[in-house]
Amino acid sequence: MKPTPRPDPFSLAFEEAHKAAARGEVPVGAVIMREGIILARAGNQVLADKDPTAHAEMLAIRQACAVLGSERLIGCDLYVTLEPCAMCAAAIAHARLRRLYFSASDPKGGGVEHGARIFAQPTCHHVTEIYGGLRESEAAALLRAFFLERR
Amino acid sequence: MKPTPRPDPFSLAFEEAHKAAARGEVPVGAVIMREGIILARAGNQVLADKDPTAHAEMLAIRQACAVLGSERLIGCDLYVTLEPCAMCAAAIAHARLRRLYFSASDPKGGGVEHGARIFAQPTCHHVTEIYGGLRESEAAALLRAFFLERR
Repeated sequence: MKPTPRPDPFSLAFEEAHKAAARGEVPVGAVIMREGIILARAGNQVLADKDPTAHAEMLAIRQACAVLGSERLIGCDLYVTLEPCAMCAAAIAHARLRRLYFSASDPKGGGVEHGARIFAQPTCHHVTEIYGGLRESEAAALLRAFFLERR
Repeated sequence: MKPTPRPDPFSLAFEEAHKAAARGEVPVGAVIMREGIILARAGNQVLADKDPTAHAEMLAIRQACAVLGSERLIGCDLYVTLEPCAMCAAAIAHARLRRLYFSASDPKGGGVEHGARIFAQPTCHHVTEIYGGLRESEAAALLRAFFLERR
């Protein structure tokens, strides 16, 4: 018997990003996984929800908390196709996520490696492990295509 | 005929903070007002909702956006009893709020005058006018009483 393949969170996050683009939203997708199990997946839906906080990461965090019945996502990892903004990075810290994996870097709006550098602040009470640059060129191409089309 | 008194947003925000304390939540309350009309009011409900993003400011922003049917709160002002954290400060910028009025300063967790200093970052694309220290001693006393009781 072949073992069930472990789900690939980044492929699912990219699926969510493509779905967001098809809806006319900035194409960002996020997935939360714990011990090989997908707890949440979401794409950016700021325009659809008319909600400036409806970034992919925020929606995924709220979904995963609902699934686990807890405001803390201990032992959970978040995968997202773009460097989180300061709002999402601070939410990741509030949720006590274990690891953050992201694809494209975001010098203009990022809050992890740029600008607010949330996890480097003394006001950040939980330090999530951070891994950037995964499948970066794929994410950068997706964002570039989206913004070129809208010019 | 006496004119209808303009609602006092800070008194409503403090009401929300007291209600949050009574529920066992960190006592923070927020109100959003536009042209003298209250659009949203909320208290912190992280524990009740099991949602780490359910800070008073986030809930008020989402409520006001639902009321206006827009992801931007142009011409709206937010009143909150504590300096917003980085998550809420970045959400305030995303929502394009006009003014932020807050009471107590938060050196340990704040993201406006402390830590991430969201509005001073080059990655912040909207600068909200900021007024801190309003009814500060009242808010500080409320927070102090709450944390003393839980020790």
